[in-house]
Amino acid sequence: MIISHKHKDMQELTIGVDIGGTNAEFGIVTPEGDILCDSRIKTKDFPTPESFVDAGVECIHTMLADNRDKFTLANIKGMGVGAPNGNYHTGCIEYAPNLPWEGNVPLSQMFSEKLGIPVALTNDANAATIGEKIYGVTKEMNDFIMITLGTGVGSGIVANGNLIYGHDGMAGELGHMIMVRDENGRKCGCGRRGCLETYCSATGVAMTAREMLQNTNIQSELRNKSPKDIEALDVSVAASRGDKLALDVFQFTGEMLGKACADFATFSNPEAFIFFGGLARAGDLLMKHIEESFNKNAMPIFRHKAKFMISGLMNRNAGILGASAVVKAEF
Amino acid sequence: MIISHKHKDMQELTIGVDIGGTNAEFGIVTPEGDILCDSRIKTKDFPTPESFVDAGVECIHTMLADNRDKFTLANIKGMGVGAPNGNYHTGCIEYAPNLPWEGNVPLSQMFSEKLGIPVALTNDANAATIGEKIYGVTKEMNDFIMITLGTGVGSGIVANGNLIYGHDGMAGELGHMIMVRDENGRKCGCGRRGCLETYCSATGVAMTAREMLQNTNIQSELRNKSPKDIEALDVSVAASRGDKLALDVFQFTGEMLGKACADFATFSNPEAFIFFGGLARAGDLLMKHIEESFNKNAMPIFRHKAKFMISGLMNRNAGILGASAVVKAEF
Repeated sequence: MIISHKHKDMQELTIGVDIGGTNAEFGIVTPEGDILCDSRIKTKDFPTPESFVDAGVECIHTMLADNRDKFTLANIKGMGVGAPNGNYHTGCIEYAPNLPWEGNVPLSQMFSEKLGIPVALTNDANAATIGEKIYGVTKEMNDFIMITLGTGVGSGIVANGNLIYGHDGMAGELGHMIMVRDENGRKCGCGRRGCLETYCSATGVAMTAREMLQNTNIQSELRNKSPKDIEALDVSVAASRGDKLALDVFQFTGEMLGKACADFATFSNPEAFIFFGGLARAGDLLMKHIEESFNKNAMPIFRHKAKFMISGLMNRNAGILGASAVVKAEF
Repeated sequence: MIISHKHKDMQELTIGVDIGGTNAEFGIVTPEGDILCDSRIKTKDFPTPESFVDAGVECIHTMLADNRDKFTLANIKGMGVGAPNGNYHTGCIEYAPNLPWEGNVPLSQMFSEKLGIPVALTNDANAATIGEKIYGVTKEMNDFIMITLGTGVGSGIVANGNLIYGHDGMAGELGHMIMVRDENGRKCGCGRRGCLETYCSATGVAMTAREMLQNTNIQSELRNKSPKDIEALDVSVAASRGDKLALDVFQFTGEMLGKACADFATFSNPEAFIFFGGLARAGDLLMKHIEESFNKNAMPIFRHKAKFMISGLMNRNAGILGASAVVKAEF
């Protein structure tokens, strides 16, 4: 393969792959975090990991062929993959309930063998955290906690400048800290009760709204919907219009997140908590309650010291960027 | 200064200094963790940091003079200090309530200037954790959490092989995770309610015993004492003799520690939890409940994976060893 001078200028590109339950997105990323091109396949179209990897490799080769005047595979330093239940230590996706493949899938090795480049893999929350450190608002920070408020609550923890992976690659499951320690705790998908994620995920916010609609007489535009159809986005929209009940839902959610962050601070004393995901788009409607609650509930030595920020990758393709950052952090 | 061959063989000694509210202990330590000599002064005899440092330096020079045939100051690589509220980043003791000195004391710099060797300082729980990593049962571990069950509950967290200090040097305050999140939570010295340490410290164990004596009719040798005189050691002794109520106190304490460890696992997914301090001497009377409770209460992915161990430094001078390890880890 002949590498032109132009290609040499483009050294050090990375491929980022964001695997979700619905789509798998592939992108080619510059060191500055610009996505030069991207493409996607439907995860659920591939019943076996082998067929998925074949389709992914084809997708990458098509992107490379379409851009052959600008770069080639020789410009690609490596590939990073973010996936649910991705284990950094083993490079495997392990028993992911929302993906079509069963058991342990050595995806990192499978892609690496087909492409001939190094591949690193981790879970989606960790990928987002590394993405934030390399391309986002925490470039200069060595100690921060990223909290992803999506369908569930995910997290990634950076301490001493490094992401904490844990002994089995399962660190950063802060969505499963117990916040309500009795039989009244909401049932969690992990099989236990009272986990943070049952209250502060998008699903949890919708449930809080349904409970408040049922248990109070507060006027609300949410009463125009069938309770079972209410989603977190409806609560966000209502709150942004000043709907009292929706604002109360965000206050409840923010106060619990603030208490959780107060506990997280006892662990790693982070400089900042970074919020990412759909609910974080509510901005101050949620963030001000998190910060107030933290400053009220944290140990005195931690109060008014931590920053509360929204991710710098919210309006960019965070999945691809985060995944590409995994390979940057690794090789 | 002439260094003999004998002295050359003794290169790389370190000084460990363990500062407590009552005594400050000084020791000279080999790379293998043997304490060659040690000495102590009474912390409370010195109303100013300057007088304390002068006395400490004199104490060290006396140890050196007494051993001048074996080693000299030229053999000392550096000094490590473990102290309450010691901040690793600044080298200062910051507003320590149990020490005679007020405000911010730059102890590391003061000792270093007088002795002419590098000095590193951290809090006592972190020093114990580094000591465990260098001389104890976690030599081969990169991810573990050390929990010190003393008058309070202290902790040190090692992830990716490094101690987590946190942005302000205040990481590892796990004794202040909230375990009882309502007005029934016990009042904590930190000004809040329901902290782990109000239940699982020596003080907390004594309080649990007093509560059980008051609220139950269970026979117990502890009823022979005035409730206010009951200490954790009395509970330990009674439990070791099979006293039902004392055993119940340990069960309650162990179950709460197990639940706390279940939350800690979501953070850093450690290979092991190491217990240190007076209460850990209760051994299986406490440890079996911690492990059982963890395996019942942790997220399924963490169950039966973590080790529960007693510190390898329990019967050695852990304070001096831990402090000396700080300098080993640093320089």
